[in-house]
Amino acid sequence: MTLRLFLSFFTLFMGLTSLNAQTEQDSITLRKLYDISLMQGKSYEWLRTLTKDIGPRLSGSEGAEKAVQWAKKELETLQLDSVWLQPVMVPKWTRGAAETAYFTTTDSAKTTVPICALGGSVATAENGLSAKVIEVQGIEDLERYGKDQLKGKLVFYNRPMQADLIETFNAYGNAVDQRGAGAMEAAKYGAVGVIVRSMNLRQDDFPHTGAMSYGDLPDEQRIPAAAISTNGANLLSKTLKENPETQFYYKMSCENHEDVKSYNVIGQITGSESPEKYMVVGGHMDSWDLGEGAQDDGAGIVQSMEVLRLMKASNYKPKHSIRAVLYMNEENGLRGGTTYAEEAKKQNQKHIFALESDSGGFTPRGFSFDASDANVQQVLEWKELFKPYLIHYFEKGHSGADIGPLEGEGIVLAGLRPDSQRYFDYHHAANDTFEVVNRRELELGAAAMASLVYLFDRYGVK
Amino acid sequence: MTLRLFLSFFTLFMGLTSLNAQTEQDSITLRKLYDISLMQGKSYEWLRTLTKDIGPRLSGSEGAEKAVQWAKKELETLQLDSVWLQPVMVPKWTRGAAETAYFTTTDSAKTTVPICALGGSVATAENGLSAKVIEVQGIEDLERYGKDQLKGKLVFYNRPMQADLIETFNAYGNAVDQRGAGAMEAAKYGAVGVIVRSMNLRQDDFPHTGAMSYGDLPDEQRIPAAAISTNGANLLSKTLKENPETQFYYKMSCENHEDVKSYNVIGQITGSESPEKYMVVGGHMDSWDLGEGAQDDGAGIVQSMEVLRLMKASNYKPKHSIRAVLYMNEENGLRGGTTYAEEAKKQNQKHIFALESDSGGFTPRGFSFDASDANVQQVLEWKELFKPYLIHYFEKGHSGADIGPLEGEGIVLAGLRPDSQRYFDYHHAANDTFEVVNRRELELGAAAMASLVYLFDRYGVK
Repeated sequence: MTLRLFLSFFTLFMGLTSLNAQTEQDSITLRKLYDISLMQGKSYEWLRTLTKDIGPRLSGSEGAEKAVQWAKKELETLQLDSVWLQPVMVPKWTRGAAETAYFTTTDSAKTTVPICALGGSVATAENGLSAKVIEVQGIEDLERYGKDQLKGKLVFYNRPMQADLIETFNAYGNAVDQRGAGAMEAAKYGAVGVIVRSMNLRQDDFPHTGAMSYGDLPDEQRIPAAAISTNGANLLSKTLKENPETQFYYKMSCENHEDVKSYNVIGQITGSESPEKYMVVGGHMDSWDLGEGAQDDGAGIVQSMEVLRLMKASNYKPKHSIRAVLYMNEENGLRGGTTYAEEAKKQNQKHIFALESDSGGFTPRGFSFDASDANVQQVLEWKELFKPYLIHYFEKGHSGADIGPLEGEGIVLAGLRPDSQRYFDYHHAANDTFEVVNRRELELGAAAMASLVYLFDRYGVK
Repeated sequence: MTLRLFLSFFTLFMGLTSLNAQTEQDSITLRKLYDISLMQGKSYEWLRTLTKDIGPRLSGSEGAEKAVQWAKKELETLQLDSVWLQPVMVPKWTRGAAETAYFTTTDSAKTTVPICALGGSVATAENGLSAKVIEVQGIEDLERYGKDQLKGKLVFYNRPMQADLIETFNAYGNAVDQRGAGAMEAAKYGAVGVIVRSMNLRQDDFPHTGAMSYGDLPDEQRIPAAAISTNGANLLSKTLKENPETQFYYKMSCENHEDVKSYNVIGQITGSESPEKYMVVGGHMDSWDLGEGAQDDGAGIVQSMEVLRLMKASNYKPKHSIRAVLYMNEENGLRGGTTYAEEAKKQNQKHIFALESDSGGFTPRGFSFDASDANVQQVLEWKELFKPYLIHYFEKGHSGADIGPLEGEGIVLAGLRPDSQRYFDYHHAANDTFEVVNRRELELGAAAMASLVYLFDRYGVK
């Protein structure tokens, strides 16, 4: 054997040894993070307080304000290096009195159906709105009917989410334009209001709210927009087939107000080697007003707080500065995410990594990445470390709305990907409560997040 | 290039082409099975009937009998090649009147706690049983106390399931000896009864029943065994620390009866090429008496029925004879599984594959295999086909209790592995009801099972 060849082998051998020692250390750290999360986790009890004691937290509401103060106080108990509030101006929309809706046919009495105003909608006239209904399968159908048939009518968007798509977020993506832009588009054809089938894969009685926009339509052209439960939509559709003259009535007293001041809540562990480089883990503090904002996104909030707590509790000293950012106003404005990114840019803070949990507190399956190929490749090299925890999904894809504005050169954006099957059962509806979050599923998510943060902190981004 | 080398390349090339064409066909078939399951599935409505109209189905009960007749009738609507009942003699145990339990300390009033008799337990005396309590962390503690301290006492087994284990079935496996053998062992030390902490990872008020055995203890030495809810166990443990003289009272009127006749329900699609070779897909029809047997194992029953329906609905003609076997008496005797295997042997029916679903109707993660390395290797080659459906787990391991007796040369035994995090929230308890099964999760499981059956039918076993 030549000396050269020997040295090659030697280098290779030493390389392998050091890789194995590293891997073993990583494996021990992940086990520790999981053990603490599952055996002495705080995320579930935090979620109980956030959902049961504080409750819904729509931007500008009293609940949102309480949640900000609560989170700041809780983070302050963790002995982080700093905790502060970052001011954000947020839109304020209120639902007002509970909505009512019913339909009537020529030969029958009133049939009540469960509806709710979409977030951002204008109210109906004080004594409600009544009109005939045109059912469509999407915005693209409007042109076919034209102004003649749509003028003075209610447009009923009834294209369901596709049950055959395995990832329910894809089914949501394929249907949600009806909710987001349905009113704006129908208004252009002279419709007087819209009713949208709830973004829900189940057949039940919960209407699901969510953001909608009028774009730059002038105020006087804005028409009221409501979601109807899936059972209600099925019943209305059936009735319309039998009685096309069916009249639909609804009354909503929602209102848009001036912007108000609110906050992102930020907690930081300052890095031991590169404190000037930042890593973010976050979710959004605001929630829709109908439930308790448990899966969306109380789970992401308490998991992000838990990541910092797990770092402290496991005595891990990160090289980079790690922040939990609890964003305000994801649901109807994204002002928190935008403000955070603007401030980071202004202050020239180099962000190298951001991870968001905003897909529910269900069993984690993995992560999606908005990152360079080299960074995704690095993550794939960690795959075996995650195998004992049944974390298997590592793909390019959407990371998170709040961290999106941080996008740029040299940053890895990641999104926690929990099992998505039940998410839209609760999303934006009155049944998104503490009870539908399973403790272990939530804790496994927090541990998976902490593990990814740890690995990126230890090995950096490529 | 020599002719020989050319031919090698040619063969290789043809091999690849044919592999790709095959893979494409497989990919199309899997997509079809999933589409039908998710868009026109019957499993969920079947489960509604089985749980809501029929309800609990303990062996020898009226519910079990009704379920047998119902399943036979439903299978007969599927235009299978044959549907029949296979007689099985099963044990019969009845709970009798609802149990009562409380404890008293010297300085306090009665504190009621939720208990239930373990399946197979003898009753207490007619007016109940009252004794002092020794809390232990497991059977191995008995020796430490010895007969002197245990004689005339109640043994309270309180070792919890381990929350740090990722797969909850492992946590169950580590704790369940207290339930299964706790009474038999404590009786040997002169204890007069046992109370076992429920096999449940949550803190709640549901006692979880389940099988226990006295082994060959003579009748007069058999002592009553009950499960106590996790909250109840925590409270009792705390009270015992403060007042070691705490007295525990419980009353149970359960009873063991003579064996009765029941049935496995079997439906068969006869194979087109090798009808003399059999493939089985199954679950168990019986359930404990406290809930509706929805996750355990109504899910497995309707998924197995759905596998045959999906084959028919997708126009797939299997090469081998495929049977759905709805086993009776998994919970307290395994007589259905044993009888089926004995009959198969007697009739010289060659079984090459069996798949059981008995881990709940949660999102499927994959399969575990009791099979040769060559067969596991073959499964791993199908991994990419399952990837679009987020099925990623293919490991050696436990398959299923009912199909276990089929074990032998040349058979692949497989178990569906759904996400296990919520399983023990409901297992053997009153809250195992239709409502805790999610439609999509159930349907995805049925489609995954049908896909595996299809692939083994097409490619055979190694």
